[in-house]
Amino acid sequence: MKIQLALDRFTISNAIKIAEEVRDYVKYIEVGTSLIKEFGMKSVKELRKAFPEKIIVADIKTFDNAKYEFEMCFNAGADIATVMGTAPKISIDNCIKVAERMDKQVMIDLLNTSKEQMKELCEYGNAIFCLHVSKDMQEFAGTKQKVENLEIPEILQNIKNVRLAMAGGIDYKFLKGMKKSNAEMAIVGSAITQAENKLEAARKINGIVSKIEEDK
Amino acid sequence: MKIQLALDRFTISNAIKIAEEVRDYVKYIEVGTSLIKEFGMKSVKELRKAFPEKIIVADIKTFDNAKYEFEMCFNAGADIATVMGTAPKISIDNCIKVAERMDKQVMIDLLNTSKEQMKELCEYGNAIFCLHVSKDMQEFAGTKQKVENLEIPEILQNIKNVRLAMAGGIDYKFLKGMKKSNAEMAIVGSAITQAENKLEAARKINGIVSKIEEDK
Repeated sequence: MKIQLALDRFTISNAIKIAEEVRDYVKYIEVGTSLIKEFGMKSVKELRKAFPEKIIVADIKTFDNAKYEFEMCFNAGADIATVMGTAPKISIDNCIKVAERMDKQVMIDLLNTSKEQMKELCEYGNAIFCLHVSKDMQEFAGTKQKVENLEIPEILQNIKNVRLAMAGGIDYKFLKGMKKSNAEMAIVGSAITQAENKLEAARKINGIVSKIEEDK
Repeated sequence: MKIQLALDRFTISNAIKIAEEVRDYVKYIEVGTSLIKEFGMKSVKELRKAFPEKIIVADIKTFDNAKYEFEMCFNAGADIATVMGTAPKISIDNCIKVAERMDKQVMIDLLNTSKEQMKELCEYGNAIFCLHVSKDMQEFAGTKQKVENLEIPEILQNIKNVRLAMAGGIDYKFLKGMKKSNAEMAIVGSAITQAENKLEAARKINGIVSKIEEDK
């Protein structure tokens, strides 16, 4: 398991500054949806340029116009782009096609995806599936909706070697409580970006995810 | 019924140029999702500035982080912003709250929303509901998925004075075939923006939507 650093609600230059600080402890750098919607593809381009050695994830949350949006992200330098699991099937198909052609990856965000939809998504065996408790669920819907609900849906376990990411208020304490996990990416935002000592927070979290990786 | 001009897959300056050409025939100007994701809030700000007399719709397709995204759109000059009907309820609640506080409007995009979800959405009686056949459905899924499927779901008719918009490949021919409609907004993109004579296309479409309005 490796850390994906989620950068949200920052200016591009602040996002770069924070990511530079914790550079040694994260494998993936996520250009958050808020950065894309506030600053456009400039955000992806500048983070790509600042971190040539990292895997850049454009959290564009595509729902339609998939070919255009995915080509835009990959041309801006992203290695992975996200599509919503609740989007029409034809759009997800188009994301997969663009990614295959450009030798990139698709992450399917399972936020609010029904069991029925998840069953259909099982055909995308090469995609990364992101188990996601949303910001709004964390911040506004009370603690019951916190990350303890990030269980791997049974249906996804039918996919051979399923690739998993998890997101939603993930912090050291949550990771410490996990006995094991098949997820390859722990998407961490505020537990690092809002920490007083960001470097120390990233180091500690990287330590625990490395341990989870070893115990697998 | 009035025209909402959807501007997608353009540079900001080309979008402004096209909208200026057909200015007299459209009431709403939609800053398309592709413009927002490519250029950020600059797209909303520049269209606001160029069209002070129009109602500006930011098609931001919010799915999470609703307060941040909606405040961002409204602060950039939008009068209406969009949220996906498949988003978590808490996020839609937050969109409504921000819009009420800032005296703006919410448009709920019904793309891929299940009947079950639509039933829940009925509580948002002041929102505008957008019946939507997506770009990808139009362009990639064949003619069966075209705009003839834009029927008003029965469940929405339970809302008193429900406010409706419709989108998805709407052109003169489609509107001509409509006997009547309760929709107040016909969202038109390529039938105007890709027409050889954009002014003439907008004039003709405006003529037919005005007629539908009169016959109501």
